[in-house]
Amino acid sequence: MKSGLNLQLAALFVFPFALFACAQESAVEPMVPNAAVEQPAEVARPKFSITTDAVFDSATIPAYSGSHDAVYAHIDANLEAHIGELQRWMRQPSISAQNVGVRAMAEMVRQDFVDLGFQEAELVETDGHPGVWGYYDAGADKTLVVYMMYDVQPVDPEDWDSPPFEANIVQRPLGKVLMARGATNQKGPQRAFLNALQSIIATEGKLPVNLMITAEGEEELGSPHYPQIVDAYEERLRTADGVLFPMSGQSPNGKTTMILGVKGIVYFEAEATGGRWGGPRSAEIHGSYKVLADSPVWRLVQALSTLTSEDGNTVLVPGFYEDVRPPTDEEQRLINGLAATWNDEVMQGLFDVDQWIDDLTGRDAIVEAIYTPSLNIDGIWGGYTGPGTKTILPHMATAKIDTRMPYGQDPDKQLAKIRAHLDAQGYEDIVLRKLGAYPAAQTSVETALVQSVIQVVNKYTEPPTVNPRLPGSAPFYQFTERLGLPLLPAGLGHGSGAHAPNEYYVIEPAEGSDIAGLAEIEKAYVDMLYALGQ
Amino acid sequence: MKSGLNLQLAALFVFPFALFACAQESAVEPMVPNAAVEQPAEVARPKFSITTDAVFDSATIPAYSGSHDAVYAHIDANLEAHIGELQRWMRQPSISAQNVGVRAMAEMVRQDFVDLGFQEAELVETDGHPGVWGYYDAGADKTLVVYMMYDVQPVDPEDWDSPPFEANIVQRPLGKVLMARGATNQKGPQRAFLNALQSIIATEGKLPVNLMITAEGEEELGSPHYPQIVDAYEERLRTADGVLFPMSGQSPNGKTTMILGVKGIVYFEAEATGGRWGGPRSAEIHGSYKVLADSPVWRLVQALSTLTSEDGNTVLVPGFYEDVRPPTDEEQRLINGLAATWNDEVMQGLFDVDQWIDDLTGRDAIVEAIYTPSLNIDGIWGGYTGPGTKTILPHMATAKIDTRMPYGQDPDKQLAKIRAHLDAQGYEDIVLRKLGAYPAAQTSVETALVQSVIQVVNKYTEPPTVNPRLPGSAPFYQFTERLGLPLLPAGLGHGSGAHAPNEYYVIEPAEGSDIAGLAEIEKAYVDMLYALGQ
Repeated sequence: MKSGLNLQLAALFVFPFALFACAQESAVEPMVPNAAVEQPAEVARPKFSITTDAVFDSATIPAYSGSHDAVYAHIDANLEAHIGELQRWMRQPSISAQNVGVRAMAEMVRQDFVDLGFQEAELVETDGHPGVWGYYDAGADKTLVVYMMYDVQPVDPEDWDSPPFEANIVQRPLGKVLMARGATNQKGPQRAFLNALQSIIATEGKLPVNLMITAEGEEELGSPHYPQIVDAYEERLRTADGVLFPMSGQSPNGKTTMILGVKGIVYFEAEATGGRWGGPRSAEIHGSYKVLADSPVWRLVQALSTLTSEDGNTVLVPGFYEDVRPPTDEEQRLINGLAATWNDEVMQGLFDVDQWIDDLTGRDAIVEAIYTPSLNIDGIWGGYTGPGTKTILPHMATAKIDTRMPYGQDPDKQLAKIRAHLDAQGYEDIVLRKLGAYPAAQTSVETALVQSVIQVVNKYTEPPTVNPRLPGSAPFYQFTERLGLPLLPAGLGHGSGAHAPNEYYVIEPAEGSDIAGLAEIEKAYVDMLYALGQ
Repeated sequence: MKSGLNLQLAALFVFPFALFACAQESAVEPMVPNAAVEQPAEVARPKFSITTDAVFDSATIPAYSGSHDAVYAHIDANLEAHIGELQRWMRQPSISAQNVGVRAMAEMVRQDFVDLGFQEAELVETDGHPGVWGYYDAGADKTLVVYMMYDVQPVDPEDWDSPPFEANIVQRPLGKVLMARGATNQKGPQRAFLNALQSIIATEGKLPVNLMITAEGEEELGSPHYPQIVDAYEERLRTADGVLFPMSGQSPNGKTTMILGVKGIVYFEAEATGGRWGGPRSAEIHGSYKVLADSPVWRLVQALSTLTSEDGNTVLVPGFYEDVRPPTDEEQRLINGLAATWNDEVMQGLFDVDQWIDDLTGRDAIVEAIYTPSLNIDGIWGGYTGPGTKTILPHMATAKIDTRMPYGQDPDKQLAKIRAHLDAQGYEDIVLRKLGAYPAAQTSVETALVQSVIQVVNKYTEPPTVNPRLPGSAPFYQFTERLGLPLLPAGLGHGSGAHAPNEYYVIEPAEGSDIAGLAEIEKAYVDMLYALGQ
């Protein structure tokens, strides 16, 4: 049981969304030039209280009662062909970072939409790799948007037990798996979803809902041009009822976790260089001249040090903790539910940390994770970083920094506060370069989308853990905030190894496993579509 | 005149000594475990005053009046052969960092000592590349130690106008030069010195002084095993009268600068890692978990920030500015002399800095450079430092730091003060790793060694600028402090490009140049030996 819990909790932390970065870098101009230097007022992190003992329990939602036996039979009868469809996708490389096979994969996706009977199936040109748009008109009341990504991460073939683009069936302790780049992130779950469509259409003639599919080929690059795809269909997308992101939702022990929200993010670089304030402008100088020349590295260190308390955990930027929406009643119930399965020691063990900040535990740690903005240094560098000794006074130093924003905070406003604080402390010369930013996203557990998916999960396996919001980020705001649609990553099945060697997707689980195999994954998608169509 | 001054001043800053680093890393243990956190007392940099208007002027020292015409004639008659000797050395690669040709070069040096008639000529095995010891007994009263280095820096041959180990004669605006790795750093000046010995012995039968030569093959590695060479001959070396380091002492305009002292240095790494105090121990974790986990990067930033004032220029470590020996009368006279040729704007232009710290200029800047300990960050790194965005909370961050110490300060004591300060601020977990350390070194202008060299320089060219002490460091303490000997880097001639492509050594200066050619360089060494032997 311990290791099962361990693995389930691990799944909470592994969420394969790349950062959604802006394509354009932009300098953040000082807002308060030459403001007087003054110490920031006493700042404390906000403490939000959970005022209810009410607990959201997904077990109270009845399992989906529908049964679509003809469709299930079609899936079972065609399972070998369905596996072949997954292999066909995985055998087509589509490495966005290296532009390997990307357009061929886009064309394959488009052609599959045509073959399934979509009325619209077209490539969507962007300033980067093309998107793919598909529209299936079922004449239904409800319309579901499906987000897809057809690109994959690069590979180091020598690290793989089976070649990453052969998509072989491999026997593993968990059962028979497809091993391939993209197996679980996200070709496997996505093509399984299309297989479900195929069996519905073959058996029933048409789908129970209308579908709008937006597929991008740059998710692994941070989705820099995905907004252009949304732009092209924005008015039609607004008319939909929800957004589904097909994914492998089960841990190795079969437990399912659902994520209803994510934090926003601003990712930026802070840089000190020599110049008017002091220090060498154009190149490093001999380190002994620190005695006469200012140092951009010390400058950056001193500027950064003004941003946080001595322990690095409380941000001293005025207003940094403002605008956070306190826990709603719904979120409080979800937190109480999540707290029932939360185990700090297991998570700390996974991270190899001895304790959370301020020795927080349990529900207090969950609330901190969801409602406190964080300020993290992702990287810092300047000068000589090789082995041994080299004596230089570097002419520049840079830090990569991200702030994660709870629901309610505005990315540009947060960055402007940091800019204003540095200016007020006398660090107007520190350049801030925004590399990416978007706000938080939140979907209600009460939406028909989420309720339908929980019903289907409850039909096939144990009731899911529902996590109200990750401390991590994904660009779901494009749907939730921009288009006003609920969004849910959902699907049975298990896979792992995203961005790593030996990525796999379980096709036929081992005897006694609670993981869904491919047939069950597809049947669950069938049920979700019918449940949504009701 | 302006550009001449420019070039002369440039020479002040280009001093080709690598850092003398300890072979063994060693952790610096906390001295004050669990000391209460308290703010450091108000700290200010020491301000030393120059209380005399007396000026040292090397022009007041009479030019060397001796003339050794037979030796000079031998040099002139054998100049082509002497150039060939330089080429023979430069054509033997001896790249210590890559172990290319090192032992062959050591053997060549040893054999040259034998061929010159040295009574002792032997390789000195160390824990690294071998040293070479040579002893020439002239039956003289005076004994001169000569420090040599036979190793060179690595090369990128494609960046060179002439292959770095062909040692071709190349025509340059300054005249005919030998272009080769090691041309000026230090094979050219050193072999020119041996050529001078050869002509003296050939003409006069023996040298006017006894010689002890200690050559090392690891100067470009920071001389990690040079102390072992000194160990082997320590008692004999103590009996000598001074130490000469053959070098190219002239700027392109022919002006000569002499350096009488160097600052000491402690070079160390400061590192924050996860662990008991907080943060991930073993690997980076997802950046979004900054909200719950401590950050080693913030830890390092905050710890470093306690070391200096907000401008990074005043060190707040208690006692950091103690133990500095104030300017002696002699040093004050030398500073007044140096101030006469000091030009802040020219140096600031070379460094591309707008001003010195606190807008210091002239003599105030010289005093600051010589008598103020500095604390410099040579490099800092942690986490993701590549292009674009990657969201991680790194498990460690490291800075390379050096402090340069004026005469009087003790390296271990200075590092212990930094350790104690970090402990007192609550940063006992920050690891300090000492990579190298040695104290300052100072030679008096009144020594016979320095007076003799000034006399010889005054015979051949304009009186030299005498710089009492560089803000930079070199391991001269091995001679000045350990053995109690005066030490002087000296020689006419000009070369440049140490550690860079197209390194050269001027053999035959262009018409009208004030640079000494090879014949004059050798004649000056002849005169120095006779002047010292008096």
